[in-house]
Amino acid sequence: MSGVGCLGVALLGCGTVGREVVRLLTEQSSELAARVGAEVRLVGIAVRRPHRHPDVPAELLTTQAAELVSRDDVDIVIEVIGGIEPARALLLAALRAGRGVVTANKALLAEYGAELFAAADAAGTDLYFEAAVAGAIPLLRPLRESLAGDRITRVTGIVNGTTNFILSAMDSSGTGYAEADPTADVDGYDAASKAAILASLAFHTRVTSADVHREGIAEVSAADVLAARELGRIVKLLAICERMADGDGTEWVSVRVYPAMIPRAHPLASVDGAYNAVFVEADAAGALMFYGQGAGGAPTASAVLGDLVAVARNRVAGGYGPRESAHADLPVRPMGDTPTSYHISLEVADRPGVLAQVAQVFAEHEVSISVVRQTVRTSGDGCPEAAGASLVIVTHVAPDAALRATVEKVAGLGAVRDVVSVMRVEGVVT
Amino acid sequence: MSGVGCLGVALLGCGTVGREVVRLLTEQSSELAARVGAEVRLVGIAVRRPHRHPDVPAELLTTQAAELVSRDDVDIVIEVIGGIEPARALLLAALRAGRGVVTANKALLAEYGAELFAAADAAGTDLYFEAAVAGAIPLLRPLRESLAGDRITRVTGIVNGTTNFILSAMDSSGTGYAEADPTADVDGYDAASKAAILASLAFHTRVTSADVHREGIAEVSAADVLAARELGRIVKLLAICERMADGDGTEWVSVRVYPAMIPRAHPLASVDGAYNAVFVEADAAGALMFYGQGAGGAPTASAVLGDLVAVARNRVAGGYGPRESAHADLPVRPMGDTPTSYHISLEVADRPGVLAQVAQVFAEHEVSISVVRQTVRTSGDGCPEAAGASLVIVTHVAPDAALRATVEKVAGLGAVRDVVSVMRVEGVVT
Repeated sequence: MSGVGCLGVALLGCGTVGREVVRLLTEQSSELAARVGAEVRLVGIAVRRPHRHPDVPAELLTTQAAELVSRDDVDIVIEVIGGIEPARALLLAALRAGRGVVTANKALLAEYGAELFAAADAAGTDLYFEAAVAGAIPLLRPLRESLAGDRITRVTGIVNGTTNFILSAMDSSGTGYAEADPTADVDGYDAASKAAILASLAFHTRVTSADVHREGIAEVSAADVLAARELGRIVKLLAICERMADGDGTEWVSVRVYPAMIPRAHPLASVDGAYNAVFVEADAAGALMFYGQGAGGAPTASAVLGDLVAVARNRVAGGYGPRESAHADLPVRPMGDTPTSYHISLEVADRPGVLAQVAQVFAEHEVSISVVRQTVRTSGDGCPEAAGASLVIVTHVAPDAALRATVEKVAGLGAVRDVVSVMRVEGVVT
Repeated sequence: MSGVGCLGVALLGCGTVGREVVRLLTEQSSELAARVGAEVRLVGIAVRRPHRHPDVPAELLTTQAAELVSRDDVDIVIEVIGGIEPARALLLAALRAGRGVVTANKALLAEYGAELFAAADAAGTDLYFEAAVAGAIPLLRPLRESLAGDRITRVTGIVNGTTNFILSAMDSSGTGYAEADPTADVDGYDAASKAAILASLAFHTRVTSADVHREGIAEVSAADVLAARELGRIVKLLAICERMADGDGTEWVSVRVYPAMIPRAHPLASVDGAYNAVFVEADAAGALMFYGQGAGGAPTASAVLGDLVAVARNRVAGGYGPRESAHADLPVRPMGDTPTSYHISLEVADRPGVLAQVAQVFAEHEVSISVVRQTVRTSGDGCPEAAGASLVIVTHVAPDAALRATVEKVAGLGAVRDVVSVMRVEGVVT
């Protein structure tokens, strides 16, 4: 490895984010040197097809990524390839060789975070990943460091820009989402990876993406969006990490991703378009929110550079940053156990006893009702058979399994003509 | 000093924040030990009147603060006394004795930051102060660390909860602010201290509170609030730190605190009541916002504990955190040079040529006009002499001195009966 007067950086991958990293490293080199206390020099860029990168100095390009990460002049490895392999193997090799690592790879961290942290610990080196969640928003470092003396109880995030853009457009236009293609964004996989990383940091507990209950936005309808609007709410795809305690004090965590209605006055409600925001609740700090661009080459590269400066400074000082820790080691419980509340919008027959019948189903499942609104509608052609009513019910908090069972039973009642919208309600004190 | 198995903490001051620090240190002691890698033990609390603290273990209390900070069993000193002296002398003594220091004292940092940073550097120890700006919001660390590889161009903050509460109430009720007492909050002194700290960190330049142009909210009237509302804007007391460049590339900074109108769609517009938020714009990261409780015992104590964990970890690792740096060393220019834009609301006589006369004054001062709205009003009693018009003018960006001179000249025109509202407009692309 090079002396402390100069730190060598290897870049793995040179796509949208990688190109911005190269640009910032070049343009900000004297600023970086001043902040780090040593020169930071890009010494190699691993790509698959060098001829596709005419804008990058040719002498830096190599197709031999595995060789690059353990080269003598490399101190820090930045990974912006994405996906599991070869990123995982390359970073494990880099960490084992004592290199500091900066990565933006959420899928890898959500799946193999524990393995990577262990490798970093064993080698006494750094693994930083601010860019992996919510792009440029400085979020992981506050969670890891600034709130280290507090106790985080809940993290609620809008962490996927694509789905937020779609839901914002549905809210403005009152229409449904036409795109049928399931994707990692629309299906909530991307948000689930980020939820796993957030929960791990917030609760000092190992959470992988497989632990995350996940529902995407494909089934959010125009009716849902309108129903939300009528109650002064808005539909957002939320990643929620919650720390709970049973009556006997046994602690556990719930980690989940789903579309939910939140009040329009909630700070997350005004997060529009491709922006991301994460709302954090802690015992002492109270409510905090972090807002910014969640994706994009330049914002992500900014987060990568922030991490690079931290890792470089640690190397100059001869140490490393705070370690990840899973010391709290809380169990992750399934969605069915998690207390939530539901908004249910029904079309029912307008005849005596229907409300009593519906209410009885809720009572049987020990779900108590917070709001009921019934609106009777006479049919246009004067035929009494067709006359119906809209019934909107918002429940108090109950275990999710009980709420689901209630909805299923209600949907089967003869007097219920249509289940117009069923959606969880979040961000309300009930 | 004690061994690395246990770190001794001295607390200076035991008011609202201090009591919460004691509580968190006690309640979270095993969590803290796990995060730091060593026990963190409160070994002394300096107060003026020990009998006033019956809820704190008596054996910890002392009136001898100067003796406490250099005691052998003290590794880290937390200062929550506030004000300049004796806080300054005590912290200088603590730093010179090699103690790590955590402080929430914005006035001290805004005035004597350079002296304290130099003392920390000379002793090779840490000086952390997250709690000094925007209470619990993890903000300084992101500015110092997460954005270290980016270039911050502008910081716009709502950093004083009292004035934000007053302005929020004025906006909801449409009334003026009755309180006549000038205070550090209302006069903007508190916000100016915070602006100085933010600008120093954001621009790597030494800025003290004396460098900050400051206007409070005492003169914000119901007319200003209504005028803002009519244009889809809201009045907020803003702390603004901006990095500028002249045509020849000469860089400089502007640091200022004043009430201004911002668009209601701006993320800062919905920051209500006693909440704080800081909007950061950076070249690569784009727009970021940090939101949370700006004051209060528990939120501030949370920030203090976060810093304590960082300083304690650094001591366990045998190093210290990133140093403050004023390497950019940009000049702070006066308000008159700063480009701003104005909203001006006038009552004028309704006769031919008045608008031309007013527009001529703007042209003479090379201030170009972005929006003009004239509303003619006939008088109730039918007397043509009393007939008037409301004239609302929003300017493009021009040097503040030119804008002020324009307003002064316009106010002196015979046809101008009243200057109803003059306020700067921020957060709009002009």
